[in-house]
Amino acid sequence: MRILGIDPGIGRTGFGVLEVQSSNLKVRGYGCIETPAGMEVGERLNNIYEKVVGLLNEYKPDAVGIEELFFNTNSKTAFVVGQARGVIMLAVSQKKIPLAVYTPLQVKIAVTGYGRAEKRQVAQMIKTLLKLESVPKLDDTTDALAIAITHAFSYKINAKNK
Amino acid sequence: MRILGIDPGIGRTGFGVLEVQSSNLKVRGYGCIETPAGMEVGERLNNIYEKVVGLLNEYKPDAVGIEELFFNTNSKTAFVVGQARGVIMLAVSQKKIPLAVYTPLQVKIAVTGYGRAEKRQVAQMIKTLLKLESVPKLDDTTDALAIAITHAFSYKINAKNK
Repeated sequence: MRILGIDPGIGRTGFGVLEVQSSNLKVRGYGCIETPAGMEVGERLNNIYEKVVGLLNEYKPDAVGIEELFFNTNSKTAFVVGQARGVIMLAVSQKKIPLAVYTPLQVKIAVTGYGRAEKRQVAQMIKTLLKLESVPKLDDTTDALAIAITHAFSYKINAKNK
Repeated sequence: MRILGIDPGIGRTGFGVLEVQSSNLKVRGYGCIETPAGMEVGERLNNIYEKVVGLLNEYKPDAVGIEELFFNTNSKTAFVVGQARGVIMLAVSQKKIPLAVYTPLQVKIAVTGYGRAEKRQVAQMIKTLLKLESVPKLDDTTDALAIAITHAFSYKINAKNK
């Protein structure tokens, strides 16, 4: 099973692709889609949409995991992130790929076993779990990999319970 | 010049199409795109996107006007409306149609000349300006027509100032 994790944002959208083989997690790719602040919003959204369509075509994931918003953020941030998330969800829906949504709390618990884990701890666990040489440079990429891991674990738990 | 006004929402997205001929405003069409609450969010966004693409193909507007969010709303609402707005902006950007954004205050002033106008007053002015037989049933449709009128007026003011 191949999982694409996405951490949406208008300036930076992190992504991470994992392959789940029994209890083994293999990284297939990760990175960050960036759009310049000076670019017109419609064009930025178009850019994100096209890049996500490209990722879906390249990796052909069986499932996509995406982060739920922090609802304690301000409404302007929520609005801007919402726009980016909308075009990503559209791209996934057009390909009819199942989409799973996780809260930051669920991600922290899945990756570190601790709901109050700091960003640094999450990053270290990802490095260990995925046998990376170093932690990814950008938080957005780390978060995307963390979401993909969360889906890999939830999927296995759900499969066992069936 | 043909203008499409849009009032975005996940459950209801209002739209209104105006034709501007010198100082004359003619309504070409208006209505509301609705998506059921029980539908999966990705599918609802897909639905809105497809319908907006349909409107752009049908009416071929020269410009699209869209409402800016009320930033005093809560972040959850902002997030959900943002998602719908994102896919609408994507559709407009893909067709390379200019997009103008107006705040509710700008719309009220443009339509009624009064920034504190009530919804009822805005609706009455729209009925008069567009020579409608009655006010549209849904606020979302009225708001979309109000945005289109705002763009028609702003466009004329900007053209005069050049």
